[in-house]
Parts: sequence; C-alpha cells; structure tokens
Amino acid sequence: MENRVDASANRVSALTHRTVFFVSDQTGVTAETLGRSLLTQFDGYEFKLVTLPFVDSLDKVESAVAQINQTADRDGERPIVFGTLVQDELRPPFAESRGLFLDFFQTFVTPLETELQRQSTHISGRAHGMADAGRYDLRIEATNYALTYDDGSRTADYDKADVILVGVSRSGKTPTCLYLALTYGVFAANYPLSEDELEEGQLPACLQAHRGRLFGLTIEAERLQQIRKERRATGRYASPQQVRFELRAAEDMFRRLQIPFVDTTHYSVEEIASNILTQTGIERRVRP
Amino acid sequence: MENRVDASANRVSALTHRTVFFVSDQTGVTAETLGRSLLTQFDGYEFKLVTLPFVDSLDKVESAVAQINQTADRDGERPIVFGTLVQDELRPPFAESRGLFLDFFQTFVTPLETELQRQSTHISGRAHGMADAGRYDLRIEATNYALTYDDGSRTADYDKADVILVGVSRSGKTPTCLYLALTYGVFAANYPLSEDELEEGQLPACLQAHRGRLFGLTIEAERLQQIRKERRATGRYASPQQVRFELRAAEDMFRRLQIPFVDTTHYSVEEIASNILTQTGIERRVRP
Repeated sequence: MENRVDASANRVSALTHRTVFFVSDQTGVTAETLGRSLLTQFDGYEFKLVTLPFVDSLDKVESAVAQINQTADRDGERPIVFGTLVQDELRPPFAESRGLFLDFFQTFVTPLETELQRQSTHISGRAHGMADAGRYDLRIEATNYALTYDDGSRTADYDKADVILVGVSRSGKTPTCLYLALTYGVFAANYPLSEDELEEGQLPACLQAHRGRLFGLTIEAERLQQIRKERRATGRYASPQQVRFELRAAEDMFRRLQIPFVDTTHYSVEEIASNILTQTGIERRVRP
Repeated sequence: MENRVDASANRVSALTHRTVFFVSDQTGVTAETLGRSLLTQFDGYEFKLVTLPFVDSLDKVESAVAQINQTADRDGERPIVFGTLVQDELRPPFAESRGLFLDFFQTFVTPLETELQRQSTHISGRAHGMADAGRYDLRIEATNYALTYDDGSRTADYDKADVILVGVSRSGKTPTCLYLALTYGVFAANYPLSEDELEEGQLPACLQAHRGRLFGLTIEAERLQQIRKERRATGRYASPQQVRFELRAAEDMFRRLQIPFVDTTHYSVEEIASNILTQTGIERRVRP
C-alpha cells in the first residue's frame, strides 16, 4: 500500500482506497470530467478509476453492474459510480447495485424539463457524437489549422487566425493551440520569437500586420530552463543566461507593444486557454 | 430569428431562445461539458452560451449575477446557470439570482462527503489546475510525442507508443492521436499506409516489430473523397477509384493481420478515442 502525506492531517498516513466507476451510454467523457473534478476535493483517498463507455443495452448494463458488485465484495467498500446514462431503462439497475450511484443526468434533466416546459429527447450519443457534424468538422479544421501554422512553420496568410500565440521556445504555445482547436474550434497559430527578433525588440513583418491577433505566453526562467534541459541537456539553449535574456526581452516586447500575455508557469493547458479567451473575448465556436 | 426543423414536432418552426451561463471559479470546462451534454437533450431551443470562468471572489460573483439578471430582463426568460463553484460563499448569490441555478458541485459533494466520511477541501482550482503537476507534464509529453510521431514522420523507436494508428491518408489519425494525448496522456503515434504498402498488402518493417500496438482507422469512401477534395480538388488523390482501392486494401490488411480497427465515418474524435481504449484495454494515464 502506498504512503503519502495526507494534507488534511498533515502527517504521513496510509491512503484509503476506493474504486470509482464512470459509466455512460456514450463516451464517458462527461462523467469523467465532472467526477474527477469532484474527487479532487477529497484528500487522503487513493481512487482507482475505471471508465465503462458505450453501456447502451440492458446486457451491457448487467455486465457493468456485475463488475461493480464484484468490486464491492473485493474492496469491502461501496464503489462510487458516476453515471451519465441518457436512456431511462438503463439507470435503475445501477441505483439498485451495491455502488453509490450518482446520476449526473437525471438529477438535472428533471429541473430542466420543468424550466423549458418540454420533455428531453432521451436519445443517447448526442453530446460527443456526430449528431452535430458541423461541430466535428470545425474542430478538425481548427486542429489542422493549428498544425499547419505551428511553430512559425507558415507565416503567410494569418487572416483566418482567431489568435496568434507568440513567445520564446517551450513556453507552452503548441499544446495551447491544439487544445483551443480540439475543445473550442478556435483557430490558433503560433510563432516562436527568434533571437534576432528578441534582440532588436521588433516583431517580424508577418506579425506586424496582425498586431490585434497577438497574444503572448511567458514562463518563469527556472521552469523554462528545466523544460529545455530535458530536451537538449547541453549548450546555450537551456543555459540560465540565455533563458533569462529571452524571457526578459519577450516580456519587454509584450509590454511595449501592448500585447496581452499570461505567465504559464503555474497554469494547466485548460487555464491558459480560458485566460486567453477571457482576455481577448474570442468566441468559442464549439464547447467541450 | 432563425428557423430550422424542429425534430420533435417534425415541422419547421421558430426556435425558442434561451441564454445559458457556465459559471466557475476555475476554468469552466467541467460546467461546459456537463451543461452542453444536458442541453443536447432539448430540441426546439436555440441556446446562447456564455462562459464566465475564474469567478473566484465576491466582487466577480456580484458582476456575474448582475449580468445574469440583466439577461433575464432582456430575454424576458430565466437564464439557465450551470455552476461549478467550489468555494461555499460564492454559491448563494447565484441561488438568489434571477436565473435557474443548477449547482453541479454542491449537489454531489454532499453525498460524497457522507460516503467518504470526510469533509471536502473546498479549495478551488484543483481539477484543471496545476495542483497535479505530474498530470500536466504527462499530457504535454504525450502531446509532444504525438507531434513527433505524427504521419510517419518518425518510425524508429516506437517502444514508447501505447498505440500506433494506421490507415489511409485523412482517415482521422492525427486528431485522434492529439485528443488521446491531451485528454488521457496516452502516447499515440500514427502511420499513413503508402500506396506500395497497400498494393503489396505488407506492413513496413518498422511496424512489423510492433504488431501488438497497431490499431486501424477506416472511413466510408464517399466521406473520404469529400474530405480529400477539400484538400486537393484535382488529381488521383480524391478520385473515387483511388479512394475505394486504398480503403479496400487497408481493410483487407487489417482483417488478414488481425489488426483491430474502427470505421470513423459516423464517429466524433471522443468516440473514436473511447473505442480505441475500450478495444485495446490501454490504461488512461490521466482523465479530462
């Protein structure tokens, strides 16, 4: 059994184990997202996570419930079951299982039906399915755009970009562009500022025409050095002097040219993306 | 006002409008995911979606509530407010606002506290924040892996791959690899089968050593033709004969070599990814 510092008790203690199921008649992404968000609120537990997607028939429900009940026997504790089952007939067996069934779907569909004064359709597979083909195409198109316009590999014709991220090498530009594309259908290009550009404090011509679309990323020197070292251990690329020079020059440029920017050091990709959308007011074309 | 076919009534009708807010003291991704999933269950409505992330102080709550109340006045209808507010003191103002407040957090934290016999930490920013730096690093590492091993651009040293997607050009390999990396921290490479390989029905040497990691993607000929035409309108690449030949050869190869595969035509990226993980049993390293 693993040991770790239990934050609430401030002492080293054995973690309590608990098995958690994410059950869905669709992909399970929604159950995973809200379920994980809730679990991060509980210290001192080590959760074993199991996703059961595409549970869309009574046969599959039966087999999922059997797995939950076996886990209850093995663990000697009730598994927690987060569910997003759209079809009515699939839910009762989970409520009667030996797990704690938290029903993300039914709990909120009922007040929504009252508010909107109509029955929900109860058709599964709509949220992350192909029901909305336009949504799918947009995300793929935006992803292809991010790949084509990644790392300054193409600099002509930025007209389609919702945003162009600028910053030094390894400041987080590429994952952020891909996340913006796949999650929100936002067209994001990125351009790494070169040493010459940083020394001169000048944007290249290809960016000057698109000043309004620029957004800067920066990062703390120590963290950047660590990231670059993992990539190329020796040479100037990861040296403290070089890293500090590049970051100072980039931030000076952002301030002087009034390019909005965010420090990515303590932020996840989701947080960087949310920050960019909030600061720029760029519309989300789709939602996760 | 827009018109569209109302699926439930099977006739053209004016859509009813309703404004929906996703409010969070974090990024809002969780509220967006579950909220959108619920909204897809209601036909005949056109929802105007507004995300308010980082609402993490009483000042910001006040301004968000003012926006909700103004919207209620303007629309003449209650806005729907999906919330994931972790801090206790931030929630009551929304419950007292003129929107319908659906509290994704408190609703499920209470039964979890009872079940786990401890108080939740009520610290915000944990789910999609940097609290778990290991999770962040894994996703970035997996994303960099997907980019390095994209489209057969590197074929040596597939040892780190959890899965290698194979298929014809434009069958959906790249977005799927990126999604698997960013969402689940899964290391996914992809390799486009060349015309020679398809004609000979043989895997290249670089893949033969990794037969157990291969997963095939296929797609209907008509859809592939359409996708390829958008990319390169003329020439053999998007011709019906060529597309049909490639797809038949690829599927023959998958069956002959017992490579599991999925038809991506009617699937979203989430569904393709869930299918791959379910069929292969690959462990999710992180969850969304």
